[in-house]
Amino acid sequence: MKRRVGIIGVGMSKFGRRDDVSVRELSWEAIKEAFLDAGVSQRDIDLVVAGSTAYRGAELYPAPPISEYSSLVGKTPMRVEAACATGSAAAFTAINSIASGMSDVVLAIGFDKMTEVNTSTSLAIGGRGGNYQWEFHMYGTTFPSYYALYATRHMAVYGTKEEDMALASVKAHKYASMNEKAHLRNRVTVEDVLKSRIISWPIKLLDSSPISDGAAAVVFASEEKIRELKVDSPVWVEGIGYGSDTSAIARRGEWTGLRAARDAANMAFTMSKRSPQDIEYATVHDCFTIAEIMAYEDLGFVEKGKGAELLREGQTEKDGKVAVNLFGGLKAKGHPLGATGLSMIYEVTKQLREEAGSLQHSFKKYVALTHNVGGTGHYAYVTVLSR
Amino acid sequence: MKRRVGIIGVGMSKFGRRDDVSVRELSWEAIKEAFLDAGVSQRDIDLVVAGSTAYRGAELYPAPPISEYSSLVGKTPMRVEAACATGSAAAFTAINSIASGMSDVVLAIGFDKMTEVNTSTSLAIGGRGGNYQWEFHMYGTTFPSYYALYATRHMAVYGTKEEDMALASVKAHKYASMNEKAHLRNRVTVEDVLKSRIISWPIKLLDSSPISDGAAAVVFASEEKIRELKVDSPVWVEGIGYGSDTSAIARRGEWTGLRAARDAANMAFTMSKRSPQDIEYATVHDCFTIAEIMAYEDLGFVEKGKGAELLREGQTEKDGKVAVNLFGGLKAKGHPLGATGLSMIYEVTKQLREEAGSLQHSFKKYVALTHNVGGTGHYAYVTVLSR
Repeated sequence: MKRRVGIIGVGMSKFGRRDDVSVRELSWEAIKEAFLDAGVSQRDIDLVVAGSTAYRGAELYPAPPISEYSSLVGKTPMRVEAACATGSAAAFTAINSIASGMSDVVLAIGFDKMTEVNTSTSLAIGGRGGNYQWEFHMYGTTFPSYYALYATRHMAVYGTKEEDMALASVKAHKYASMNEKAHLRNRVTVEDVLKSRIISWPIKLLDSSPISDGAAAVVFASEEKIRELKVDSPVWVEGIGYGSDTSAIARRGEWTGLRAARDAANMAFTMSKRSPQDIEYATVHDCFTIAEIMAYEDLGFVEKGKGAELLREGQTEKDGKVAVNLFGGLKAKGHPLGATGLSMIYEVTKQLREEAGSLQHSFKKYVALTHNVGGTGHYAYVTVLSR
Repeated sequence: MKRRVGIIGVGMSKFGRRDDVSVRELSWEAIKEAFLDAGVSQRDIDLVVAGSTAYRGAELYPAPPISEYSSLVGKTPMRVEAACATGSAAAFTAINSIASGMSDVVLAIGFDKMTEVNTSTSLAIGGRGGNYQWEFHMYGTTFPSYYALYATRHMAVYGTKEEDMALASVKAHKYASMNEKAHLRNRVTVEDVLKSRIISWPIKLLDSSPISDGAAAVVFASEEKIRELKVDSPVWVEGIGYGSDTSAIARRGEWTGLRAARDAANMAFTMSKRSPQDIEYATVHDCFTIAEIMAYEDLGFVEKGKGAELLREGQTEKDGKVAVNLFGGLKAKGHPLGATGLSMIYEVTKQLREEAGSLQHSFKKYVALTHNVGGTGHYAYVTVLSR
């Protein structure tokens, strides 16, 4: 990167079923908090990158109304989309625009209001986010069944058990219960998860992330601007990497991990000159519990096949070797598609700045990452952040 | 910009009603031509930015299937959207990624297949691309009626006539008749235009761009890479600017020009240290004939209100003071939303390299620009290019 880029402000709406607000109001909740956090206002912003899948319930072309509601007219020339990794695509675009010298202060705003359509429509939209032509259309494959294919393969090859996956859900709900902005704040036990309704075996209801409304916002700035603004504790973008893959799961060479995520991690580690062992905190894309186990392996926290072990040993709990998703993860914090990637950057920033209250992890090196997957591994982004 | 960025290859599909191909095949037509033109192949590409409005007829999340069909799996982490300026948003993202040092060779691919829905659905989708809540939903305003509002205002304030607007259509059809890739290749007279069916007075059928299928691709590279590849005649990106505005036309402060376009032009001229007087060739966003007249004024080719004069004097014809849209413009070349901005860069690159055959303009300074508008002026991009 030709210029160093940092994070000077973060904001996040309450995630959940947000019948109380329009998608514009929801976005402003996050933007307002990010502006107050950064100590900037609309006039300081050079560029706004809007991230949204433009879910049926929202506007067809949502960037202008969001922009207008938040008084950012004139600065919002695009929307980006990368399915469930949309928020990270917005971050990537914002970071590049600063590093290139084009902009100094950029707002990335991610949002989606998924509950405006009913659950079966939502599943159908999600299914089209897999492979439309050969899988959704021909076999009716939707997201839980895609991840059921990963889970059964991981179970068959590495001996991962339903109980192991359940642990990821228990952990997510435990931390979400302490996060006021989380969608699902009830605690669950391994037994609750195992007894919950089967969606697509071995994926049960409590292995699955909810359908959420939400928004998250991040203000990025150039190093020069950060010095000028005398920002107290900027969080630095040390590396960012991306990957992509075929949408057709039948054409993948493997079903126990995601090539796109490994490519993204490699790129981010190379750029940041960091290794998985440097990472003390991570947000991983646990859209289903098996996805968290695969993420540990794809990110190199453990060797292939040992993801469940890390969970069983409690190494990804608060103050463990590498704490993961202490704000509740997609599983319980919620997963409003366009917001998720930026809510991960929100979380990591709060953690690195030691502003996470009862959910605060203890750092030594202050190095963390975000891992955000789109589709069933069609897209992935990994961002290495430090303070 | 921290690094100089150039264009090393361009490609464009035939525009028109393309029942003969899927959206994947259509995209590959443009990508293949751009690769052959650049002398690169898939393995040379670091990043692909897909630009598409994901028009109803295409895929909901179109970047992965396009990428896969063109053997670009692993390199395509996002889609960008800015309504009718989507192609330019893809170019902006690609250029930033190179200037930032993130990438060396980036493919921007823009595509939309609009004819897979019928014309009234298309108009309704277009209408939602205006202001959904207050204008489309309440008054049924669609794109021809938005531009009719501009036209009547321009007529009232500056005395612009229906005959003046018709000249833009006559010019567009004349040049499109010489462009094998254009959608509408028939020639028309001022009388034909004036007699054509009224869509929304004073906008008539022959004042309106058609609903087209098409794709366009541009390969951008860093200056270092261009030296390394020994590219014969790179075209340089001297400046790029963007603007945005409210989607609600009722809230605009004026109705005879587009603030977003002027903002974009100012930014691009400042970055390139060029002025409107340096520009010898331009592609302008003539979705309706009045839009071409407003563009001349917004770009500073003439003072406000004198746009029609420039047309009447033939100054924007081939070998005129500033040649405009010699490939036929949106009006007759066609306007497949996601492709348009990149097809403008294709056109300007061909012109600057003097590869435009019978449509070749004569240059002295070899400086040109593209002007691409999204929505009714919600978005705009201006790019200054030179050889």
